[in-house]
Amino acid sequence: MEKLRVAIVGATGAVGHELMKVLEHSRLNFDELLLYASPRSAGKTLKFRGQDLTVQVTPEGPIDADVVLASAGGSVSQALAHRWAEGGAVVIDNSSAFRYDPQVPLVVPEVNGEAALSHRGIIANPNCTTAIAVVAVAPIHRKYGVRRMIVSTYQATSGAGQKGMDELLTETHKVLHGQPAGHSEFAHPIPFNVIPHIDAFQDNGYTKEEMKVAWETRKILGDDSLKISCTAVRIPTLRTHSEAITLELEKPATPDEIRELLAHSPGVEVRDNVGEKLYPMPLTASGKFDVEVGRIRESLVFDGGIDLFVAGDQLLKGAALNAVQIAEYLQEKGALKVKQRA
Amino acid sequence: MEKLRVAIVGATGAVGHELMKVLEHSRLNFDELLLYASPRSAGKTLKFRGQDLTVQVTPEGPIDADVVLASAGGSVSQALAHRWAEGGAVVIDNSSAFRYDPQVPLVVPEVNGEAALSHRGIIANPNCTTAIAVVAVAPIHRKYGVRRMIVSTYQATSGAGQKGMDELLTETHKVLHGQPAGHSEFAHPIPFNVIPHIDAFQDNGYTKEEMKVAWETRKILGDDSLKISCTAVRIPTLRTHSEAITLELEKPATPDEIRELLAHSPGVEVRDNVGEKLYPMPLTASGKFDVEVGRIRESLVFDGGIDLFVAGDQLLKGAALNAVQIAEYLQEKGALKVKQRA
Repeated sequence: MEKLRVAIVGATGAVGHELMKVLEHSRLNFDELLLYASPRSAGKTLKFRGQDLTVQVTPEGPIDADVVLASAGGSVSQALAHRWAEGGAVVIDNSSAFRYDPQVPLVVPEVNGEAALSHRGIIANPNCTTAIAVVAVAPIHRKYGVRRMIVSTYQATSGAGQKGMDELLTETHKVLHGQPAGHSEFAHPIPFNVIPHIDAFQDNGYTKEEMKVAWETRKILGDDSLKISCTAVRIPTLRTHSEAITLELEKPATPDEIRELLAHSPGVEVRDNVGEKLYPMPLTASGKFDVEVGRIRESLVFDGGIDLFVAGDQLLKGAALNAVQIAEYLQEKGALKVKQRA
Repeated sequence: MEKLRVAIVGATGAVGHELMKVLEHSRLNFDELLLYASPRSAGKTLKFRGQDLTVQVTPEGPIDADVVLASAGGSVSQALAHRWAEGGAVVIDNSSAFRYDPQVPLVVPEVNGEAALSHRGIIANPNCTTAIAVVAVAPIHRKYGVRRMIVSTYQATSGAGQKGMDELLTETHKVLHGQPAGHSEFAHPIPFNVIPHIDAFQDNGYTKEEMKVAWETRKILGDDSLKISCTAVRIPTLRTHSEAITLELEKPATPDEIRELLAHSPGVEVRDNVGEKLYPMPLTASGKFDVEVGRIRESLVFDGGIDLFVAGDQLLKGAALNAVQIAEYLQEKGALKVKQRA
């Protein structure tokens, strides 16, 4: 029988770590796992299903695998992803390098899985903030038609990787001991602070992170008429991004209708019982595969519109989990080519 | 010469502490300061302008002062504020007890100071989130007409008083030492978490904190047609509330026009140079009298609309400072009656 081989590029980073944890329990049927990282991390061993796997240096040519889960940053992917795919592997890329390439599908399996089937070697994984929002917004858009979407984010430090989390912990410790907080991963000290600046500023005054939410949501939903505005804000949390979302709808919806709709939508956990103090929070959403959705209420600015609050583990649905789910989807559809090997 | 006497009710709380600091350097011309608090705190001495002042038990009848700055919570004010005023004092009340009373002016001096002149013994100080937003939004509303206003807040733990701050520090310390965080001031543990729940939930699914922003902004701006929606979120910061605000305008405005307008608006510091990484943050806004406004950009959902981000010290502009500024305003307008005393 043919053996399916999966490779992780960027295995030693925060997302790589989550990729291995998700693959450990994935329904993806595969036989071999290859781990790649930068020369700095090569030679390390990482445990996977009880076995020690040695991390190798990321190849600059074809990767002899069937699926490559890449999370090594935009510039590495930009330079190498096409080469990794040359031997026939499908590269599921977590960076922003190919998301806006019309030849490359941008996929959240619950929303537009079928788009993955038309790949030409590379499939893009969306930005974490987008992936989390779109799981909740897509079913609403399909049934009620979203016209305008206003998003304010509460983003965790792990959005900047393991180093982001480490900086929050280290610098918070300093502040608690009366020392000033420093910073290197973030533009300013993050302990007990709020930084409305994630990724580079664009000419229109929005950050790239904010524009990603607009660009990517439109591409995933296949609707360029959607008006989307985002304010992306880094806050002193470790993992899970939260988002306050206001939706103007073409067809009016009630909160009960939205709750009912989302209760039957994949990838969503409706957590919305304010009497019981149940609403989305990083504390409960971290480590969870589903995106928590709650605070569902009638919009006070758009007749028949909806306000809601979401919290999703951005290392999972916003990155590692979504990538593995794309591979699972391809396999279920019989679209994962397994190469003949010696 | 007549001597102006100022009283603080709730002198030992977080806002009381800020009231004393603000009064210390205020241009309010007064001669005597009386301090009141609950029986638990009575007898304490607090320093003011080099003198030790003894905290007395809050009276249940008239307060023999000309101005009473009250910050002792809604139920205390509800029960006693009218009595405090019976001797002729004007009570500037920081609680929500009278804000929606049509007989009671709700005042932010930069915005609607003249409303204070028609008081009948009580003037209400707005909710902190509202006061901070309205300083930035009022000039825009006057010139361009705000139609819709969507607010997402990033609120500090000191919104729940000194105990809120203490809980954040104590519980964060536990988490950093591998212990689970507890909670008593907040509905859930606050360290490295986000809680979309401030004040009690209303029948419409919004919290009272969220509705306060809608109700109070309309009252202060004197415009009931304004559509306002808010999501109020507690985050692990110590002081200063930040807010992401999206505005639909009647007359289109450009970001440059708004920057220019706000640069000449009282109570506002335009902090908006993304190239220099200058934008509003708790780190820079804390302890500052002005509200920082930045991230001013064209709305992507409303033609000619504006998105912006504000950060204001909610213990100052959101509470103590605004109350003292109301007293200053009354004095400047010759509207502070000084009582004859023996």
